[in-house]
Amino acid sequence: MEDEIVLTKVTLFEKIALSIQRLIDNEVLKPGDKMPSVRSLSLEQKVSMSTVFQAYYLLEKKGLIEARPRSGYYVRKSFKRNSQEPSATATWKMPINVRVDSLVSDFVKPHAKASVVDLSIAGPSVELLPVAKLNKSIQAVLREHKGKSFQYAFPPGDENLLRQIARLSLHWGGSLAKDEIIVTNGCMEAINICLRAVAKQGDTIAIESPTYYGVLQTIESLGMKVLEITTNPDTGIDVDELEKAIIKTKVAACLFTLNFNNPLGSCMPDSEKKRLVELLAKREIPLIEDDILGDIYFGKSRPKNAKSFDKHGLVLLCSSFSKTVAPGLRVGWTAPGRFKEKVERLKFMTSIAAPTLMQQAVAHFLENGRYDNHLKALRLAYHIQMRKYREAIFKYFPEGTKVTDPQGGHVIWIELPHKVNAIELQDIVLRQGIAILPGSIFSAKKRHENYIRIGYCNQFTPEVENALLIIGKCANNMLIEGN
Amino acid sequence: MEDEIVLTKVTLFEKIALSIQRLIDNEVLKPGDKMPSVRSLSLEQKVSMSTVFQAYYLLEKKGLIEARPRSGYYVRKSFKRNSQEPSATATWKMPINVRVDSLVSDFVKPHAKASVVDLSIAGPSVELLPVAKLNKSIQAVLREHKGKSFQYAFPPGDENLLRQIARLSLHWGGSLAKDEIIVTNGCMEAINICLRAVAKQGDTIAIESPTYYGVLQTIESLGMKVLEITTNPDTGIDVDELEKAIIKTKVAACLFTLNFNNPLGSCMPDSEKKRLVELLAKREIPLIEDDILGDIYFGKSRPKNAKSFDKHGLVLLCSSFSKTVAPGLRVGWTAPGRFKEKVERLKFMTSIAAPTLMQQAVAHFLENGRYDNHLKALRLAYHIQMRKYREAIFKYFPEGTKVTDPQGGHVIWIELPHKVNAIELQDIVLRQGIAILPGSIFSAKKRHENYIRIGYCNQFTPEVENALLIIGKCANNMLIEGN
Repeated sequence: MEDEIVLTKVTLFEKIALSIQRLIDNEVLKPGDKMPSVRSLSLEQKVSMSTVFQAYYLLEKKGLIEARPRSGYYVRKSFKRNSQEPSATATWKMPINVRVDSLVSDFVKPHAKASVVDLSIAGPSVELLPVAKLNKSIQAVLREHKGKSFQYAFPPGDENLLRQIARLSLHWGGSLAKDEIIVTNGCMEAINICLRAVAKQGDTIAIESPTYYGVLQTIESLGMKVLEITTNPDTGIDVDELEKAIIKTKVAACLFTLNFNNPLGSCMPDSEKKRLVELLAKREIPLIEDDILGDIYFGKSRPKNAKSFDKHGLVLLCSSFSKTVAPGLRVGWTAPGRFKEKVERLKFMTSIAAPTLMQQAVAHFLENGRYDNHLKALRLAYHIQMRKYREAIFKYFPEGTKVTDPQGGHVIWIELPHKVNAIELQDIVLRQGIAILPGSIFSAKKRHENYIRIGYCNQFTPEVENALLIIGKCANNMLIEGN
Repeated sequence: MEDEIVLTKVTLFEKIALSIQRLIDNEVLKPGDKMPSVRSLSLEQKVSMSTVFQAYYLLEKKGLIEARPRSGYYVRKSFKRNSQEPSATATWKMPINVRVDSLVSDFVKPHAKASVVDLSIAGPSVELLPVAKLNKSIQAVLREHKGKSFQYAFPPGDENLLRQIARLSLHWGGSLAKDEIIVTNGCMEAINICLRAVAKQGDTIAIESPTYYGVLQTIESLGMKVLEITTNPDTGIDVDELEKAIIKTKVAACLFTLNFNNPLGSCMPDSEKKRLVELLAKREIPLIEDDILGDIYFGKSRPKNAKSFDKHGLVLLCSSFSKTVAPGLRVGWTAPGRFKEKVERLKFMTSIAAPTLMQQAVAHFLENGRYDNHLKALRLAYHIQMRKYREAIFKYFPEGTKVTDPQGGHVIWIELPHKVNAIELQDIVLRQGIAILPGSIFSAKKRHENYIRIGYCNQFTPEVENALLIIGKCANNMLIEGN
């Protein structure tokens, strides 16, 4: 077992709330159970009653418990647990060509544009952006750097930003040096370049199933093949399955999102990450690790990433500040291990450099402790929103619907009864101004035809609740019509 | 002949100066010739004496004429003309693989970093950046768009920017609609994506010889081959040679910089551009046109680009604001004709979107007439600097040195006597704190071993003059040692 480094400052009431949350998550405290009274818990835990009140208030905000008048606090009833999670997808036996591009283009953008309530997005809504503080950082660096903010910041990137990114590695149990990092135009460019650095046209890339459609499009555009590996909605890639698959099939690289896979929200236990890295090292297979969501965790501490177990420079860690600070900045980065030189050259050839002012602004934002504070608020907001969305989905969606219980990130993956065709459903709800994503764009095999992805990035407003109600009704109608 | 649309406002004295400059360029007025007296020219041209003075002052600033005390104005002696231009490179008979990448990596960045006087750059120096006005544009859009400046601006890009880019097409005789354009992370990403849209691994791309090393690296990284076509230092690609070459060899696409090729500074006459477009249309060969320097012209009006003659959507025009506004913004664009849908998808897959705030700021900068004013000043500055650099090169470099007379852009291409090895020369002058680029990185065949490229982006200071003196001395020493 590795020691866990917990860098997040957790106040006393948050600590208590987290312990209780774990009890609820593990069903020690079950839906409908009465919570200990504030007085008794205060005595038991040797904390003030006001601390307990704060903890209960937080749990209530997260939608985990509810206050009943003159009766005390109860665990909310509407919770269903892991047994209701979507099933894991089987590993596909052969590498296959990817042909999702036109499907994605048909279903992603036009739908988001035409919608009033956009549940297809997976990035911070305007309310969750640190606009004022970003403005301050921009003003500060414009004053400080003057014309230099408008000149090239050639790869590897702005010195100051590289230092700040290296500093962040403490959060995930790593110890990156600044000269191991290359700044990119977002995480997608990082992944693109890393793929080109370790594999060529015709090569096979092992991926999770389901996986983010952007990754599938990228692999398709590079003329590479994919091998989809079984992924558990809780723990991610099945390392044993992967081992079997890579013995049978020559794989040029793996491309995994171990922390909060999009769309699953799964998180691989750190011990499994270690096993995974060791397995791939034995066979000299590079792992491109997309850790863009690692900082958006709902648990007590940030999960580690595979990079922290990498002793051979075979893990190409990719991330960005698109989901944690703001997507419009287009500031991403990669720590590509032994492939650094090649990746740095490819970065230059692909787009010369990342935008200078944006790099400087992010560096300033990180340097001044703004990142840590912002993240804390962001995680809480997403956690609360997730609970509320999830509850509404259980309430309004057809009997038999299975829903992930994401441990981080910002999307929920929903398995509807078999008779519901998600592409049809998407079309129907769009006509009522609601955008969702159908499951089939998350797999090269176009599986998941009765799945949808819903992002909980927008605040849970009455409009959102109504949208979920409409989606549920439409799905129910499809079931009735189907009979 | 096409009608020329001249959109630049030229004042009277500038007009007179330009006519005189043409006379000097065509050697009607030769070095050492006495200029007409201010009084006589004023009578002749029916303009005030002060207008003539202004015209002479401008020509003097450009280094074309000089005032001699109590004697009047003379055409400067140190000018050598086109007969002294480097020779055109022959078309290579077979497509070849590109292997310049490691050479470029060895010679470009480390040298620039280690230098005190950097003559290897080809982009605006800090003094030439519109820093104050960019700051104003940034402040304005931050106020106006608030959080929206930090959200995604998905492809094709920021609406306002697309409109402004479309408006600019009037300058080059085009009439782009805003929905024909896609914003990219600089021109290099545009070229990269366009290459991937029209060709695949193993395909052959026809390019100019010499050509910008970044383009060679990109083609290399995509596993494509190049066919180098003869290029004249004045008029660019030889269309007849190209025709012969594409009859013999299957070419998937052409990638040309018709306006101010880097490093040649050549400019293809508009009538030849028309021929070129027609020739390629007959054979359905796409032309990726890099017009990043088209706005930095020294003549009376902006040269057209091939896109303005494109009737079949076969020209993929690529450009950016890196050379004309500021490189650190990373705002480029492409108008890829019939390949638009594919290019737009590739843009998404490669890096999702271009930075939002930077797009909004450039749009604001363009909208408010800042671009036109800035360009006018920039062109004048580069033209003046070019003359001064060129003169110093003639003064200090060995007998037999041939120098281009660029009609735009910001680099000079220099052919040294055969015995000078440019890679050695680069190394020697770097030890004295001066960065230049050796010719061999501008060709896949590693030709041009006695060529160097010098950028005139920095102001012509005594330090720059001294640097050129040192380069000249070192080259002379190599000649003596070589004997």
